[in-house]
Amino acid sequence: MSAKTNSGRFFEDFRLGETIRHATPRTVTTGDVALYNGLFAPRFAVQSSDEFARRIGYARAPLDDLLVFHVVFGKTVPDISLNAVANLGYADFRFLKPVYPGATLNAVSEVIGLKENSNRKTGIVYVRSRGFDETGEPVLDYVRWVMVRKRDETAAAPAEQIPELPKAVPASALGLACPRIDRGAYDAALSGSPHRFGDYAAGEKIDHVDGMAVEEAEHQIATRLYQNTARVHFNLFAQTKDRFGKRLVYGGHAISLARALSFNGLGNAFHIAAINGGRHVAPLFAGLTVFAWSEVLETAALPGRDDVGALRLRTIATKDRPCADFPLKNGDDYDPAVILDLDYWVLLPRS
Amino acid sequence: MSAKTNSGRFFEDFRLGETIRHATPRTVTTGDVALYNGLFAPRFAVQSSDEFARRIGYARAPLDDLLVFHVVFGKTVPDISLNAVANLGYADFRFLKPVYPGATLNAVSEVIGLKENSNRKTGIVYVRSRGFDETGEPVLDYVRWVMVRKRDETAAAPAEQIPELPKAVPASALGLACPRIDRGAYDAALSGSPHRFGDYAAGEKIDHVDGMAVEEAEHQIATRLYQNTARVHFNLFAQTKDRFGKRLVYGGHAISLARALSFNGLGNAFHIAAINGGRHVAPLFAGLTVFAWSEVLETAALPGRDDVGALRLRTIATKDRPCADFPLKNGDDYDPAVILDLDYWVLLPRS
Amino acid sequence: MSAKTNSGRFFEDFRLGETIRHATPRTVTTGDVALYNGLFAPRFAVQSSDEFARRIGYARAPLDDLLVFHVVFGKTVPDISLNAVANLGYADFRFLKPVYPGATLNAVSEVIGLKENSNRKTGIVYVRSRGFDETGEPVLDYVRWVMVRKRDETAAAPAEQIPELPKAVPASALGLACPRIDRGAYDAALSGSPHRFGDYAAGEKIDHVDGMAVEEAEHQIATRLYQNTARVHFNLFAQTKDRFGKRLVYGGHAISLARALSFNGLGNAFHIAAINGGRHVAPLFAGLTVFAWSEVLETAALPGRDDVGALRLRTIATKDRPCADFPLKNGDDYDPAVILDLDYWVLLPRS
Repeated sequence: MSAKTNSGRFFEDFRLGETIRHATPRTVTTGDVALYNGLFAPRFAVQSSDEFARRIGYARAPLDDLLVFHVVFGKTVPDISLNAVANLGYADFRFLKPVYPGATLNAVSEVIGLKENSNRKTGIVYVRSRGFDETGEPVLDYVRWVMVRKRDETAAAPAEQIPELPKAVPASALGLACPRIDRGAYDAALSGSPHRFGDYAAGEKIDHVDGMAVEEAEHQIATRLYQNTARVHFNLFAQTKDRFGKRLVYGGHAISLARALSFNGLGNAFHIAAINGGRHVAPLFAGLTVFAWSEVLETAALPGRDDVGALRLRTIATKDRPCADFPLKNGDDYDPAVILDLDYWVLLPRS
Repeated sequence: MSAKTNSGRFFEDFRLGETIRHATPRTVTTGDVALYNGLFAPRFAVQSSDEFARRIGYARAPLDDLLVFHVVFGKTVPDISLNAVANLGYADFRFLKPVYPGATLNAVSEVIGLKENSNRKTGIVYVRSRGFDETGEPVLDYVRWVMVRKRDETAAAPAEQIPELPKAVPASALGLACPRIDRGAYDAALSGSPHRFGDYAAGEKIDHVDGMAVEEAEHQIATRLYQNTARVHFNLFAQTKDRFGKRLVYGGHAISLARALSFNGLGNAFHIAAINGGRHVAPLFAGLTVFAWSEVLETAALPGRDDVGALRLRTIATKDRPCADFPLKNGDDYDPAVILDLDYWVLLPRS
Repeated sequence: MSAKTNSGRFFEDFRLGETIRHATPRTVTTGDVALYNGLFAPRFAVQSSDEFARRIGYARAPLDDLLVFHVVFGKTVPDISLNAVANLGYADFRFLKPVYPGATLNAVSEVIGLKENSNRKTGIVYVRSRGFDETGEPVLDYVRWVMVRKRDETAAAPAEQIPELPKAVPASALGLACPRIDRGAYDAALSGSPHRFGDYAAGEKIDHVDGMAVEEAEHQIATRLYQNTARVHFNLFAQTKDRFGKRLVYGGHAISLARALSFNGLGNAFHIAAINGGRHVAPLFAGLTVFAWSEVLETAALPGRDDVGALRLRTIATKDRPCADFPLKNGDDYDPAVILDLDYWVLLPRS
C-alpha cells in the first residue's frame, strides 16, 4: 500500500487527549435535502416547508437533524472508524444550532478515552466529535465509542481511561437548536397531527404502522451523500467473502428510516434535540422491510420555555416484523427482529 | 393501533361537501428538479434551461408539470387513498400557474361525490383536489375518484351523489400556466425538434421508440420524494403476502416515464396544460421496461393566443412491449402489455 | 417510425466540416451536485465546500469536472452516437473555465474526420465537441471518435479524412479552468492529504484501495441526470436479447467511480485539467465492484504559475479485482479485470 493512501488508524495509533481535524468540509444544500427526502420521505412540516418554518420562528426550513448528524459523522469515519469492528454506542449527543441549506459543515474529534480489550487484539476508543458550521460555531456535539482493531497485538497498551458519560442529556441542555416558536402559528392541519406536547404521557407506546423496504442502491446513495466511505457498505466483492456475505447497511440509515416512520404517531415531534444513547442491535441488509415503534419514557418542560416541551422516546426498529405488539426482548435477549434501540429527546409545540 | 397514528379514512368516514386541508406543505427546490431529472431524464428545453425559459418568456425554468402534480397528489394520499383499493380516474385536471423552484406547495380536497358499491364492502369517493403555492394562488385543480374500503360493511351508506364531469377540458380553459411566449426566440436546435404546433394533425400516431427499465430503488425514491407513503409501494414484507407478491410502482411513475419518452417525437410539446382523463390499465413492477406511443386526437387554437397551440394526445404506455405497431386493444380488452391510457392536452409553439 | 422521432444519424449522414448544435440546454444546480455526490462520493475539498473553495480563490465550490463533462457529453449522444457500435477514444480534451452551480450548459460538435471501415458496414466519425456556458464562453473542448453503423451498406463512402490529434495535451495548455490559488490558504487537514505536487514523482504507483459496487438504479439515475438516453443503458427488454443479455453501464460512470476512488492517495489532485486519451477496455455491469490504481506518468510545472503543478496520471479501473498488485496487461492483452485505461492531467497545489 502506498504511503499516500489512508489505511485508517488502529487502536495503538490513538493518543488520549489528541484532537483530530477531519476532512472533507461540505456545503450542504437544498440538493442534499431533496435527496434525503427521496431516500426517507420525512414528513415533518418544519423541515419540509420554508413557509411553515418561517411562520413559527425559523429563518427557513432547517436541515433534518439526522442529515446534519450523518454529514458530521461521515467526516469522522476515515480517521476514527475505518478499522472499527463495531460501533458500540453514543452518549451526550446534542444539537446546538439550527443548520440551514448553504451551511458548510466540518468536524473535529477529541480522543477522550481508551481501553484495550483483554484479548489484546482490539481496544475501545472514545471520542467526542463536534460539528461546526462556517462561522466556527458548533452545531452538534456527541460522544461515541467504537471497538478498533490493533495493527500489532504486541503493541503496548495505553493507560486505560474510561470517560464518565451521562445516562441521559438533562432537559436543561435541550433546545439550543430550536428557536423560540410561535405556538399559535403552528398549524395542525398542515403538520398532519393535532397532538401536542401535553397530549403524550410517559409509558405511552405507539406503533408507527408503516414499513419501508431498503434497496442496495438506496443505502449506497445515502451513505455516499454523507461522504461516509466505510468499506462494509460498498465493497461487495470483499463483503461476499466476509461473514455476512453481503453489504451492511450503514447504521445511521436505520435511524433515519425509524425517524421518518415515526411521523405516523409523532407528527409534531419536529426536532430531535438530543440522543441519550443508542444501540445497533443487529445489522440491516437490503431487501428487508423496516418497521418501528416508540415508547414515551419521560416528558419534560424546558427551563424558561413555554413554547415547546420535550419527550424522551425509546424507538425500536425491526426488520421484516410489524410492531403492533411492540417487540423488544425475549427474556434477556433482544427479539431477533430488532435492529435498533434508540433513546432520544424530541421537541413538540405546547398547546 | 394508537389513537395517534393515521390509519386512513374508510368510505364511511367521508362526508359530501367536506373540505380537507392536507399535510405536509413542501418547498420544492432545484434539488427536487435534479432528482426528478435523474429519475426520468426529461429533455424538454423549457424545464431544463433557465436561459431557454427566460428567452421565451418564463421567469426561469419552471418545474416539470408532473413534478408539481406528484407533490400535490402525494399530500392527498394519507387523507384520501390510504385505504383505496384502486385509483379509478382523473377528470377536469388543469395546471393554473407556472411553478418555479422555491415555491411552497400545499393541497386541499373537497369531497364532491360518494357512491357505495353494491357489494357494500367498498365505495367510490370523488374529490376535487387543489394545489396552492405560498401566495395562496391555485397552481393545479383536478378531480379524481378512488375505490375505498369500508371499515364496517354494515355501516350506513351516504346518499349517492355522482358529480358531472367534463369528458375533456375545453381549449378555452388551457394555458393559464403558460406565459405568453416569444415564438421567435424559441430555438429549434436547442429544443431538439423542428416540429411546431402546425406540423401535427389529428389522427397522427407517433411511436416514441425508446424503452426505460424501472428499478425498485427508483420508484421508491421518486414516490418518497413526493411524500407519497402509500404502503403498496414500500412495504415489501406485506406485499410479498399480497396478491402480486411484490411492490406496485406508483401509477404516477408510469405517467412520468411516458411523458419523458414522448420527447422523442414531441420535443416541442413543452407544457402539459390539462389532463382530460387517465386510466392505469395494469400495474407496473420493477424489472420491466416501459415503452410508449401517442396519437394526436385533436388540435386546438387557444382563444386570444397566437403564440402556442394545443394538441390533445392519447398516450399509451406498455411494459416489455415496443410500440412500433401501436398496441392498444385486443377486441374489447386492452392489450395485456398496456399499463397506461392517458388523454391530455399539451402546448407547442406556433410557427 | 414517425418522421418526427429521432432514429439517430448513421455513418453516411455525417458531412466533414458540418457543425451540429445539440439539444437540450441544461442549467446545472446544487441539486445536480448533490445527486452526483450521492452517486460517487467524491471527497475533494474544493468541489465539496464553498468555504474551502473561496479561501483558495474560487468564487465558490465549482462543479466536479466530470459532471461538466457528462452533461456536455450527454447532449452529443442523440446526434452523434445513437447508432454507435463503440466509443473508440478521446483526445485533446481540455477544461477551459470553472463552472459553478447555476450555469447553463450547451454543446456544439464539428465533424472533423470520417473513415469508412473495410467491411463497409460501419465507419469511424471524429467530432470535436465543445461545451459552452450561458455567456457563450467555452468550458470544455474535446475530440472523440466513435464507430457508427451505416444505414445502407451500399451507400457511397465519404472521402477519408483522419484528423491529426495530439498524443497528450501539453502542459502549457493546462489550467484555464483553475483560478490562481492561494497555496497558503490550502488546508491539508481539511483536504484530507498532506501530499502536494512536489511529493509525487514519475513512476510512482498508487493503489486506491477501496472498492465500490454498482447498482442498476445508480447508473441509470446518473446517466439520466446527464440526459444521456443511449438505449444500451436503459432498455432492459432489448438488452436481454442482445449479446451481453443485460444493460451496459455508461462508460463515463466508470470514469467517475475511478476518479472518486482516487481520492485515497491523490487527495489534493483537486482538478482534472485535461484528458490525453482514454479507453473503455471492457464493459461494466451492475453487481460488480470497481477498484482503481494510478501511475504518475509525468510531472509538469505550468508556465507562469507557481500555485499549482500538474501530474499526468494513468488510472486503471478494474471490476471485482483489487489493485494492490497494479493489474494491467497479461502479455499483449489487458488483464480481463481491467475496464478503463485513462491518461489525464490533474492539478495539485504546490508547497
